[in-house]
Amino acid sequence: MELLSALSLGELALSFSRVPLFPVFDLSYFIVSILYLKYEPGAVELSQRHPMASWLCAMLHCFGSYILADLLLGEPLIDYFSNNASVLLASAVWYLIFFCPLDLFYKCVCFLPVKLIFVAMKEVVRVRKIAVGIHHAHHHYHHGWFVMIATGWVKGSGVALMSNFEQLLRGVWKPEVNEILHMSFPTKASLYGATLFTLQQTRWLPVSKASLIFIFTMFMVSCKVFLTATHSHSSPFDVLEGYICPVLFGTALGADHHHDNHGTSHGSFHGGSGPGPQHSALPTKSKEELSEGSRKKKTKKAD
Amino acid sequence: MELLSALSLGELALSFSRVPLFPVFDLSYFIVSILYLKYEPGAVELSQRHPMASWLCAMLHCFGSYILADLLLGEPLIDYFSNNASVLLASAVWYLIFFCPLDLFYKCVCFLPVKLIFVAMKEVVRVRKIAVGIHHAHHHYHHGWFVMIATGWVKGSGVALMSNFEQLLRGVWKPEVNEILHMSFPTKASLYGATLFTLQQTRWLPVSKASLIFIFTMFMVSCKVFLTATHSHSSPFDVLEGYICPVLFGTALGADHHHDNHGTSHGSFHGGSGPGPQHSALPTKSKEELSEGSRKKKTKKAD
Amino acid sequence: MELLSALSLGELALSFSRVPLFPVFDLSYFIVSILYLKYEPGAVELSQRHPMASWLCAMLHCFGSYILADLLLGEPLIDYFSNNASVLLASAVWYLIFFCPLDLFYKCVCFLPVKLIFVAMKEVVRVRKIAVGIHHAHHHYHHGWFVMIATGWVKGSGVALMSNFEQLLRGVWKPEVNEILHMSFPTKASLYGATLFTLQQTRWLPVSKASLIFIFTMFMVSCKVFLTATHSHSSPFDVLEGYICPVLFGTALGADHHHDNHGTSHGSFHGGSGPGPQHSALPTKSKEELSEGSRKKKTKKAD
Repeated sequence: MELLSALSLGELALSFSRVPLFPVFDLSYFIVSILYLKYEPGAVELSQRHPMASWLCAMLHCFGSYILADLLLGEPLIDYFSNNASVLLASAVWYLIFFCPLDLFYKCVCFLPVKLIFVAMKEVVRVRKIAVGIHHAHHHYHHGWFVMIATGWVKGSGVALMSNFEQLLRGVWKPEVNEILHMSFPTKASLYGATLFTLQQTRWLPVSKASLIFIFTMFMVSCKVFLTATHSHSSPFDVLEGYICPVLFGTALGADHHHDNHGTSHGSFHGGSGPGPQHSALPTKSKEELSEGSRKKKTKKAD
Repeated sequence: MELLSALSLGELALSFSRVPLFPVFDLSYFIVSILYLKYEPGAVELSQRHPMASWLCAMLHCFGSYILADLLLGEPLIDYFSNNASVLLASAVWYLIFFCPLDLFYKCVCFLPVKLIFVAMKEVVRVRKIAVGIHHAHHHYHHGWFVMIATGWVKGSGVALMSNFEQLLRGVWKPEVNEILHMSFPTKASLYGATLFTLQQTRWLPVSKASLIFIFTMFMVSCKVFLTATHSHSSPFDVLEGYICPVLFGTALGADHHHDNHGTSHGSFHGGSGPGPQHSALPTKSKEELSEGSRKKKTKKAD
Repeated sequence: MELLSALSLGELALSFSRVPLFPVFDLSYFIVSILYLKYEPGAVELSQRHPMASWLCAMLHCFGSYILADLLLGEPLIDYFSNNASVLLASAVWYLIFFCPLDLFYKCVCFLPVKLIFVAMKEVVRVRKIAVGIHHAHHHYHHGWFVMIATGWVKGSGVALMSNFEQLLRGVWKPEVNEILHMSFPTKASLYGATLFTLQQTRWLPVSKASLIFIFTMFMVSCKVFLTATHSHSSPFDVLEGYICPVLFGTALGADHHHDNHGTSHGSFHGGSGPGPQHSALPTKSKEELSEGSRKKKTKKAD
């Protein structure tokens, strides 16, 4: 890494890791998060008939990662809500996305080039959150590897990990799917990222935190922008997992994911691998896949 | 407010805000709370076949507000249960309401004039809880407006906000309804009251806390006694919301509530406003409406 | 108790209460806990298709009691996961039980004489956990009887009390049964044990803690080994409850349990006692009964 820090790349990484997130990057995070909420089936109707429930869901989408991390670390669940400016900004974004006259704001931020910029900026926030979460957990548990990884993971994944309960708030209950069973790309990437940052924090990965933030942000931004631009739900980890999982767990995990994306004959596939009463009958799509997909299939009925 | 404090009304408010709640007012709170539990369909049978589950539900009905506030503020969930006297008193009320020979205790406290007194005293406790909750949250977060409102709200609403999980304890699961989607009058009033007390605490509302407690208690007592006496489920906020919601959220929220109370042709109404797969098929009654209503329609089957 | 301490039994109890639990006893606890997970219908398939969800469930089975106790006492939920050695040991057990070639490890630990030893050692850990939990709660709340009993109870019962949410992680949702409604023997014994240890801690029970640990461990070990060896689901408390419950709650709780074990004509029984829409249609088996029973009835479909 001497080479890297000798180059201007090291200085770039350092100054990149010091860019303040509030308000511009946070704003992008709120916009993209609440966009995903609006993609959920029934969310628009909910916002009109039950604005309070819709607002609470929007807050969970924006601040779910803080709530979960606070829960894990035994801090007040509501702690982050003392940042009045952030909550007001998120509330304003919620109001504009759902209630702006002529749906003008929604149409602007949904315009693909604009949306890609926001998506890229959201990933910057996500990576920074993971790094901060692990630093915070390390402060409490110096040798708590699992604590650090878990905290970084929930800080990166956010509302996805509590999607069942976020749906419950909207009167929707789909117990047969959850983010742990069918991890979306951001959730998986957060888990791997949290592992990397934990290795860095405990000095097993010989790289400065600023460089790791910079490299991992570049990776996340390019992946997520590519996936969003192509409306794809595949994941760059699929290939790797396709090799590792059969060795470790005696089954083709990657094949299962690949299968989901084509959405064909579930019954026959699962029929081969076992009875699986609780899995066979359900569409094995992750939460983010569902939310992105719902734009395309507005007519699809929940449940 | 100089005028008010000059009058004896100010002194009355002050001494009213100093009346100790334990044991008489707390007793009324427990009686009315556990009465509502007994109104739930299946609660009597549950108490006989699974007394432990029934007792736990009764405790949630009595102390749910403390549990939720402790959860939000990161304090031990079980903190309030260290008040042995309160827990024993609530347990005694639970036992008398469910297992008193000849159902004597239940019949006494259900006699309308007696019940109205208890309902009035319960509202005194509710308002005091809101005020104490906001004072407590203010102590932790001096400028946390949202934290204060949320803490006051959960302290006022209590078990209603966790009704889904309270039902789960009894083996009942109704994910399509929750207190956020269909706020009952006490929940809404607690939210508005919490906002008022937060304004008072942060000195935006130029009134003493004692006066606000007194005025808001009078409002809650008169509303709740009137609603209980007339078995009505309408809310004094309906008119106001009927004006504000269409302007803010482009829909008649009040109309929806009015519609619920008459219980006619849901399908046609929702058919006009959108597909709403998760809302159209369910009776949009709030938890307290259900519990009060269940006395009248004992034959109504759950789900 | 002077007599007891004069005898060598007192010294035996004291040295027994000082035997370190890690790693041998903890290992047994992990093995038996994860065995019960493997007995759940669909667990093997889950481990192959969603190893992450399976691993998380295994961690809940091993450390659920710590998570629940931390939640009740307002401490970080993830606190126990800072014990890297315990988590790694539990993960190794999980891997061996689910993925060992030829299912060799599973077949070894399932061999009845071996399993009975592990079951006995698990009960040693359970009783010690109850005692430690109550000591810990007593440290925070000196006169909090209910807090002490609750903490000891969740420390003894562990994952059973959160089984609904552990199932949800696996995509299974059975809201009509929970551990509070249908307590298994270990849950009930933990509750009674927690009451005894609380009486001891508050000096109402004139016996040393070491002796109580020894006596209660002997009771738990003999009961659980007998129940496991005979594949029985009856409980030694049934007789006592059969006498007490009709007096206290006006119904034969024991009769209900006895009825469950024979599994005959539910409809007619409940038809006699009331409408009970949410209870009549469900098989009233507890979680551990289900898990033990599932070995026998592998063909039984979930829900």
